[in-house]
Amino acid sequence: MIGQERQDQQQDWIILQTKSEAAKADYFDSIFFQGNGYVGVRGFQDEYITCEDYHRTTFINGVYEYIKKDISDMVNTPNFFSIEISTMGKSEKLSTVTSADCVDGSYKRSLNLEDGVLSKKFQSRLEDGTLDVSIDRFLSMADTHLAVQRLSLTSIDFEGDIEVTFSIDGNVRNNTIHDEQLKSEKNPVFLLAPVRYEKHDDYLLLVEKTPYSEITLAEAMCIEISPDTQVLQVTSSVLENSRNLSYHIRIHITPGQKAVLCKKVCVCTSRDPEVWVDPAEECIKKILQTASLSWNILFSSHSAAWAQRWADSDIQIVGDKRSQLEVRFAIYNLIVNYPVNDPKCSIGARGLTHGRYKGCYFWDTEIYMLPFYLLTNPESAKNLLKYRHNTLNMARASARDFNLSGARYSWMCTSDGSEQCETWDTGSSEIHITADIAYAVDQYWRITGDDDFVAQYGLEMLVEICRYWVSRFSYDANTETYNLLWVKGPNEYGGVTVNNTFTISLAIYGFETAKKMLQMVKEKYPELYQATCKNTSFREDEILKWNQIALHIHISYDNARNLLLEDDLFMLGEPVDISCLKTDNQPLYKKISFDRLQRMRVLKQADILLLMGLLPEKFTDAQKRAAWEFYEPITLHDSTLSFGTHSWVGAMFGYDEKAFDYFQKSAGIDLRNIMNNTAEEGLHLAAFGSTWMTVVFGFAGLSLRGGEILLNPHLPDSWKSISFPFFYKNKKYLCRVDREDATAKTLVQEVS
Amino acid sequence: MIGQERQDQQQDWIILQTKSEAAKADYFDSIFFQGNGYVGVRGFQDEYITCEDYHRTTFINGVYEYIKKDISDMVNTPNFFSIEISTMGKSEKLSTVTSADCVDGSYKRSLNLEDGVLSKKFQSRLEDGTLDVSIDRFLSMADTHLAVQRLSLTSIDFEGDIEVTFSIDGNVRNNTIHDEQLKSEKNPVFLLAPVRYEKHDDYLLLVEKTPYSEITLAEAMCIEISPDTQVLQVTSSVLENSRNLSYHIRIHITPGQKAVLCKKVCVCTSRDPEVWVDPAEECIKKILQTASLSWNILFSSHSAAWAQRWADSDIQIVGDKRSQLEVRFAIYNLIVNYPVNDPKCSIGARGLTHGRYKGCYFWDTEIYMLPFYLLTNPESAKNLLKYRHNTLNMARASARDFNLSGARYSWMCTSDGSEQCETWDTGSSEIHITADIAYAVDQYWRITGDDDFVAQYGLEMLVEICRYWVSRFSYDANTETYNLLWVKGPNEYGGVTVNNTFTISLAIYGFETAKKMLQMVKEKYPELYQATCKNTSFREDEILKWNQIALHIHISYDNARNLLLEDDLFMLGEPVDISCLKTDNQPLYKKISFDRLQRMRVLKQADILLLMGLLPEKFTDAQKRAAWEFYEPITLHDSTLSFGTHSWVGAMFGYDEKAFDYFQKSAGIDLRNIMNNTAEEGLHLAAFGSTWMTVVFGFAGLSLRGGEILLNPHLPDSWKSISFPFFYKNKKYLCRVDREDATAKTLVQEVS
Repeated sequence: MIGQERQDQQQDWIILQTKSEAAKADYFDSIFFQGNGYVGVRGFQDEYITCEDYHRTTFINGVYEYIKKDISDMVNTPNFFSIEISTMGKSEKLSTVTSADCVDGSYKRSLNLEDGVLSKKFQSRLEDGTLDVSIDRFLSMADTHLAVQRLSLTSIDFEGDIEVTFSIDGNVRNNTIHDEQLKSEKNPVFLLAPVRYEKHDDYLLLVEKTPYSEITLAEAMCIEISPDTQVLQVTSSVLENSRNLSYHIRIHITPGQKAVLCKKVCVCTSRDPEVWVDPAEECIKKILQTASLSWNILFSSHSAAWAQRWADSDIQIVGDKRSQLEVRFAIYNLIVNYPVNDPKCSIGARGLTHGRYKGCYFWDTEIYMLPFYLLTNPESAKNLLKYRHNTLNMARASARDFNLSGARYSWMCTSDGSEQCETWDTGSSEIHITADIAYAVDQYWRITGDDDFVAQYGLEMLVEICRYWVSRFSYDANTETYNLLWVKGPNEYGGVTVNNTFTISLAIYGFETAKKMLQMVKEKYPELYQATCKNTSFREDEILKWNQIALHIHISYDNARNLLLEDDLFMLGEPVDISCLKTDNQPLYKKISFDRLQRMRVLKQADILLLMGLLPEKFTDAQKRAAWEFYEPITLHDSTLSFGTHSWVGAMFGYDEKAFDYFQKSAGIDLRNIMNNTAEEGLHLAAFGSTWMTVVFGFAGLSLRGGEILLNPHLPDSWKSISFPFFYKNKKYLCRVDREDATAKTLVQEVS
Repeated sequence: MIGQERQDQQQDWIILQTKSEAAKADYFDSIFFQGNGYVGVRGFQDEYITCEDYHRTTFINGVYEYIKKDISDMVNTPNFFSIEISTMGKSEKLSTVTSADCVDGSYKRSLNLEDGVLSKKFQSRLEDGTLDVSIDRFLSMADTHLAVQRLSLTSIDFEGDIEVTFSIDGNVRNNTIHDEQLKSEKNPVFLLAPVRYEKHDDYLLLVEKTPYSEITLAEAMCIEISPDTQVLQVTSSVLENSRNLSYHIRIHITPGQKAVLCKKVCVCTSRDPEVWVDPAEECIKKILQTASLSWNILFSSHSAAWAQRWADSDIQIVGDKRSQLEVRFAIYNLIVNYPVNDPKCSIGARGLTHGRYKGCYFWDTEIYMLPFYLLTNPESAKNLLKYRHNTLNMARASARDFNLSGARYSWMCTSDGSEQCETWDTGSSEIHITADIAYAVDQYWRITGDDDFVAQYGLEMLVEICRYWVSRFSYDANTETYNLLWVKGPNEYGGVTVNNTFTISLAIYGFETAKKMLQMVKEKYPELYQATCKNTSFREDEILKWNQIALHIHISYDNARNLLLEDDLFMLGEPVDISCLKTDNQPLYKKISFDRLQRMRVLKQADILLLMGLLPEKFTDAQKRAAWEFYEPITLHDSTLSFGTHSWVGAMFGYDEKAFDYFQKSAGIDLRNIMNNTAEEGLHLAAFGSTWMTVVFGFAGLSLRGGEILLNPHLPDSWKSISFPFFYKNKKYLCRVDREDATAKTLVQEVS
């Protein structure tokens, strides 16, 4: 592969910035996010920093600290990518941000999605001549506790001394952000307290701790200097008061000469999935091992790990270069925001890319992201569900707090599963999350066939979830109906309403799933069945109640139109012309109060249509079309979950043209900043998940729900082909859909 | 009048404490609350204080300071009743609280409701002998800016020196209290900042200011010592840093001798209804005038003012001494918590007796307290409604914030009328407050006949309130119905519901009232009518919409049972046995979550029954009985508003025995601490109002709604007679109901 073709293919992997503009700095900080699942760093500039310290975030999944009673925030940990470069004695600092010294047109920054390396190049024109500067950094995918950063300085016609300072900068705070979408506060606080800062011959070490959640964080740093670099002096400083560890390297450089300096950082915490005896000791061990490994060696194991991830998850699109890049950007971010091996955490709505929503996990994980992991890396999907099993006791406690039975999952939560939502209507009423988790258990089982997981973990969750629903429905003897009162569905403009169809339908589906699983486990794992029954005090006659409720629910339905209604109150809302109300992509809740919006017959995001997408076999084509024709025109898409759902479901339902329109909005939600909030809120993980779902379940039309592999493609007009691998019941397949030939070619190979 | 009879009559006026117990200190601090409408002081001990400074509150109506963006708290102002007494050089302090030196059985404290004087007596046994100590204090009803405190020391067999320190102690803070009934926080802050502290020959002065709301407070103090007191030295100290002004008086006392020391304090602020040029200057003027007036002179004008208030408002009950005292306690507290002459403030749910709910005003004022003021002091009732007119522009702004028309009154507010409720469901949904204010305008007009007020103020409010309702109803073309969606009625366990009957009925009553008033003003005040139309851009065809809505509302009604239903969802609630749930007077929300309670078919407090009490002419006897029989047994009375409503409405509806039971709970709510929250939350002003309403509208059966005076008495069995004065259309009447003779004897006399 040579010349143009090679270059084109590279372009399908690279996000490029060719100008450093202050106004777009936050946007690029989001877009250039790097991660390896364990740790995530926003794409802020390496050198002299202008953004506020609480925007310069480095988050470690699962590291949370209390900010008030029972409420926590994801902790901003030290910035280990800090570099300062200055010419000696003249206090001239080299920087792309101040840019006074940056040669016009020389600046270029790029994120390579293929290996997650963020690279920056620029030329710096100084008093004593011009220098080429280049900085590359990555978070190792081979060892997720390792971060590497390399600075290369090449003199064009510069001669003189330069001082480079490599730091771990702990002087970064959290700005605790209010849940409510319309409130903004500024309240920066340190969530980590220094424990000890140490200077050793070969490395520097810091140990910090969250005072209340008592998580210990250790970071160690060492440096490596290329042999042909002319080093004048190397010193280090450890300043506990200013939370700073630094190496100061003075070099001399002459025209034509190149100096290469490499910083290596190890990060360990007391809550890592590996469970260290002492995170500081582990950190020291790692940094000493790493010290002797060159950039090339570290990079090659890192990129090999990435190659394996892409081999299992890449989607190749022929005929649409923009979509190709955007889909890869989605996949990249789904990979770098979850660590595969950690059953004690899940994925925040903004992953590790931003502190929005205090880093909390939502239903987004189970409904919008899980499918990607299920089909590309079943082990990580299993751990995501194990997280829900690990927090089952908290869900039980939550049900008791609400004076209900069984287990009630929190609308927003972190490591311990406790409710983190501080607004009453949402936290108390958006109860479909509990049904969504039961749905996810079923989906996991359908796609992996992992009976063991169900017997060991899934069944216990399902039994408790069913018990929750039994206690949550209210029986009305007058109409002999079980009603779900004061419930909020996925359409968050729908108010706290009565008999939300989405929630009821998934609750009933949970009963069906539980019955199926009880049967399977009883037959195949009689001992585990007995253990679960004992452990949960389950009696088989509880099933009678599930059947009774399923027979006596109330679903609002317009027979004349074959139309499934969102809830009992939806049709009381005032019809409005949304084209007059919404004239741009700005969410309407920024102009109209939630109180007013809930009395309008509009949707913030898909509700009934999402239900039909999740359970397509439960509805007729006529019902699906009636729902689409009724709801789609009155949906405002004021949630970033909405475009993706409409593209995926639209394609499934045969609305190919609209589906592609919605796909383009969902796929570009961050790269093209469609909702105008990528800079301030970070990246939208669920939109990435639904972008992936659109290609796989919508455009390729893959269906795995019926026990076999089905394809019903709806390829966009401009696309020549799609191909992607996927895992199904322990085997790996390759799916390829061509414009001419709409059948799936399957390659069967055993999963290692 | 001599002997037993005189003593009995005195007992009908006096609240007595005969033992100082730490465990009951907060309760007595509430019960011994003193006020004059302008300023209110909890009944904390004068000398050496054990309670937290933020429980030692001195509130001035209308003085609020911001505690966060848009949210304010009632400011705890300096404690001007501070006294310290010690024997010289031995640091022995005389105190009823430490009580080590207090002679057994000598302690007695009493509040005389007749003149609002709080008196304390005890004997102190010291090393050098025994002393009689007595302290009296009052807040002048003749000049509300004046507070007086007198210390008398009588030596029995003591000889020695004593130092008395009289202070104004500004070292008091606010503990900002969360709205939600289940959250408690401790966050004491100073809301006043010192401006200047001055020492003069004749007085001491402090000036302080609230930094954000910019209210200036000035307080001055002087002392007077009885001529036969042997004074050794008088010094004063002004300590701005510790926010303290003090006089230190050293005296010598010998057996048989009596020393009397009197402290006088003046208080003025920049927001007083009198509008001073400079509150500090005014304060100085007042203290200099007061300096020459003796306790006796100050007391005699004070008690004359009280005598006038009682002459217009006392209820005499023969045959039930406990009820007599409790009813007077209610009237006393209604008098001392509102200043008569201030149209810029209203009455907090706990008046000036406690900082609960940030000192906010609720619907409690219009529905539960206004009747008392209307019938006993119409001027104050007028000012309470003028306060709502003064905040009409804020109500207009609030309607706009909710994307609605007209004026929307805030659920909780203070001087400026802005919404102070921080919980979403209540603040957004408990919209009946706006209808309650329209009802209050009508009631004011019916009882005073004050057409001028309506023409000048009432009509403008009514027009804007009607417009609010027009925009708040949602039209459903399908059923041709105007629905009130997402609304919370008085029963706060009823959830955010649909078509709350109470709210709809009072909204429609507002339309009727507005039409009636428009007609009256148009005929009688054509110029003011034109001015109001112009000012509000009112067009007469707006009335067509009011009529249309009134014709097409939806009220849930059970025809078979003649039963008016609370809302469209109430009957979907689960029937429960409340006797199993509620086993004591503890509100159930302390055991069961609000989320769970709202799905039970229970009431926190009266809803439909209250509506029937407010608009008795709109319902048949059969409807009233059906409602009582259905709702009363499922009401939990978890609001202090509930007992009073049930006693008042119960008596009106002929449930005499139950009415008296409820009356006893309502009347004793604080004196007998029925809900066990008098100590921690202060006094319940609305319960006082409804206690008064029960006697007047229930037991005496007075009705003034029909344009004439009607009496339909339901005298409790144990009562021999009730008599009370009242004002009706500018005339004062005396109502007397005897067991034998159930007619009202009316004394007609012109109101001065």
